[in-house]
Amino acid sequence: MARWEPGAKVRLVDAAVDLFLEQGYENTSVAEIAERAGLAKSSFFRHFPDKREVLLAGQDMLSQLLADGIAAAPPEATPMEAVAAGVAACAEVFVSERRAFAVKLRSVVAGNPELQEREALKRARFTEAMTNALRQRGVDAPLATVAAELGALAFRLSWERWTDAPDDQSFEQIARATVAELQAASVSLR
Amino acid sequence: MARWEPGAKVRLVDAAVDLFLEQGYENTSVAEIAERAGLAKSSFFRHFPDKREVLLAGQDMLSQLLADGIAAAPPEATPMEAVAAGVAACAEVFVSERRAFAVKLRSVVAGNPELQEREALKRARFTEAMTNALRQRGVDAPLATVAAELGALAFRLSWERWTDAPDDQSFEQIARATVAELQAASVSLR
Repeated sequence: MARWEPGAKVRLVDAAVDLFLEQGYENTSVAEIAERAGLAKSSFFRHFPDKREVLLAGQDMLSQLLADGIAAAPPEATPMEAVAAGVAACAEVFVSERRAFAVKLRSVVAGNPELQEREALKRARFTEAMTNALRQRGVDAPLATVAAELGALAFRLSWERWTDAPDDQSFEQIARATVAELQAASVSLR
Repeated sequence: MARWEPGAKVRLVDAAVDLFLEQGYENTSVAEIAERAGLAKSSFFRHFPDKREVLLAGQDMLSQLLADGIAAAPPEATPMEAVAAGVAACAEVFVSERRAFAVKLRSVVAGNPELQEREALKRARFTEAMTNALRQRGVDAPLATVAAELGALAFRLSWERWTDAPDDQSFEQIARATVAELQAASVSLR
């Protein structure tokens, strides 16, 4: 799926996160999620293989946004400028209307070790996507890996800060400030 | 369990990895692992809650080695010198007699998405342990986080390089060279 498709899928994701918060992830069934979203159980399985995957709906799209953002940076952009462009590109989905959802999602994941595992793997995939995008720009191995790790860290911190931030701060603002902060720390590392 | 206890536990771990390689992770039962290790099934459950945990036997100990190595670095050590000491301290368990095991483990994990998730979470825990150890040395937040991320990356690359390396290269040598390489990359990041 190249783009987030509104409608049934988003309704399922929102219903799932609400139910996970209300009654716990373990205690929530696929049937309940479908019902809350006003859909048949069979609709659920048209969109997701299982309950856990609901929370990862955006993963492939975010990997793509990170990679495309890096690829689309001007040819003269430094590796960290390209990384900043990649993380900032996620602002396309982290719009203010989705912030309340992100706050709930963060709280669900924080309370569940199984979901934390999945999150950790998701971050590893983001690092991989960014490493590959940087290498395609001609950035060599150790530099590309380090820049991508910092990018993944910046992505995570930016997302957390965005869920904590007042409504008028955009994800893009936060992302650019976070990348700059991590780059400054990195350059001063002794 | 505070320390790696030789004997039954190591035998179970070795038996498990051999069986996972021979017949696949999914197709291997706890009973088979115990049998291969020459132990009763009940012995297995004295050491591990389930099959997957066998592959994470060393995780708590490695977190401790990383954190203790950082804590034990001289007071005047820079953050990256402390990180290098932490990663190098893992040489205590990554001894040449365990290299063949590590090669097998790496191959088992590479072939199984469920185990890759667990590995990704393990790395997140290592980062956390190193971040905390650095903060206790008085290193502030963004610097401690970046140094710990680089430390976790250095740990993973060192482990991979160690499993690829000729027998006469010690984990400590590889770890120190890897931390130095990542630090050089990090300092040059623009």
